[in-house]
Amino acid sequence: MILDRLPGVLRIIKLTIAYDGTAYAGWQRQAGVDTVQARLEVALAEIEGRAVTVHGAGRTDAGVHAWGQVASFKLEHGIDTHSLSRALNTKLPDDIRIREVRTMPASFHARFLARRKSYRYRINRTPVANPMERRFAWHVADVLDLGAMREAGAILIGQHDFAAFQTAATDATVRTTVRTVFGFSIGPEADDIVMIEVVGDGFLRYMVRTIVGTLVEVGLGRRSVGDMAEILTSRTRDRAGQTAPPRGLFLMSVDYSDA
Amino acid sequence: MILDRLPGVLRIIKLTIAYDGTAYAGWQRQAGVDTVQARLEVALAEIEGRAVTVHGAGRTDAGVHAWGQVASFKLEHGIDTHSLSRALNTKLPDDIRIREVRTMPASFHARFLARRKSYRYRINRTPVANPMERRFAWHVADVLDLGAMREAGAILIGQHDFAAFQTAATDATVRTTVRTVFGFSIGPEADDIVMIEVVGDGFLRYMVRTIVGTLVEVGLGRRSVGDMAEILTSRTRDRAGQTAPPRGLFLMSVDYSDA
Repeated sequence: MILDRLPGVLRIIKLTIAYDGTAYAGWQRQAGVDTVQARLEVALAEIEGRAVTVHGAGRTDAGVHAWGQVASFKLEHGIDTHSLSRALNTKLPDDIRIREVRTMPASFHARFLARRKSYRYRINRTPVANPMERRFAWHVADVLDLGAMREAGAILIGQHDFAAFQTAATDATVRTTVRTVFGFSIGPEADDIVMIEVVGDGFLRYMVRTIVGTLVEVGLGRRSVGDMAEILTSRTRDRAGQTAPPRGLFLMSVDYSDA
Repeated sequence: MILDRLPGVLRIIKLTIAYDGTAYAGWQRQAGVDTVQARLEVALAEIEGRAVTVHGAGRTDAGVHAWGQVASFKLEHGIDTHSLSRALNTKLPDDIRIREVRTMPASFHARFLARRKSYRYRINRTPVANPMERRFAWHVADVLDLGAMREAGAILIGQHDFAAFQTAATDATVRTTVRTVFGFSIGPEADDIVMIEVVGDGFLRYMVRTIVGTLVEVGLGRRSVGDMAEILTSRTRDRAGQTAPPRGLFLMSVDYSDA
């Protein structure tokens, strides 16, 4: 008898999940709308035979995608991880895919133990929008000065109060607006796509999209590199640029100290 | 007065068109189904004020995409090419985009004068399908021997009778099954995508997809490189492999001697 298959033993399971967020009102379960968390919980409840609550590493917004979202939950059913992955991928719609299933130590929690998150933002810079990219990139037809955008983005690296880049809608659960950005890069993925990558210990709501919207204004020459430092120190949302649309944003990976 | 704007003068217009073919029953107009040609003709009729017939360089099948489809038609309306491009992109759905509009010599015809066509086929080779690629790639989870596929593909270069690679449904309008393949290449576009590119003077119906289906069988070790030569000389459709799904196929460009 294999321990992994013993019924009645609660295990902590970690999922790595990719999704095309186009059709979803974001990650988080909400009454009356279709979300990725809800789809996962429905599929897991069918396997477990009772309700399962899933904890996601990050609450991606409506229309935002993921390549490496992470979620954890408790499971009593004795199914092995390989069969669980196959069963979930059979039950889930094809715009949500389970990339990996692992059994974790009892202390694991996808949200509380997340140490680093990487986001990627894709900009389609062909004069006419590439129709194959319309769900996965923001179309900016005008020429972007990537050098200026790179300089402006570098200002964000380090520990800062990012209040200027969070959504104006105040979230009472956010106790501090201080975050650390570990890395920032920008470059063409291919001739027609510019990729912006940001790695940090956590991100405020709309933070990556507001950073990208502001950087694009720098790239278009509407703001200077110096404006970026000024916006950051202002800690005032209305100083920053527009919020870039969700369709270009991808949660690429979530790192844990023990994973 | 600009000649380009004179009404009543028939001009030949060349369009370069990109489309996500997922929602369409192919390029060619057919009663009762939605096609790219029909969408274009409806948009052009609104501008011209009467029916316009569009000639496409290649009849892409249902679900096949294009980055560089070419079409030509006669236009009497005096609209300049820049305004025509903008008007079409406003009227067309966002999965069809006009990349370029040019006024051509009266002898130009997108179908009859096409000299070379380039097709690209994309294979998603991650163990679990990437949900962002599900409309634009064929998911093959098993390991592919790209070296063997490259060798097998090289056999196709040159002038050959490609009867073994056309659809079994005979098309009475096809007078010869001899075609010339000018170029063939295969390689990773990125870690998770394998790209197969074929350039030729013309392609039989399903030819690229049957070549790809057969190459994948070589890549999986189910057929040898030598089998490819044998299939080609057999000129018999049932010797070749499966037809790869349309979603991975893109008409990339069409070349003309005078363009």
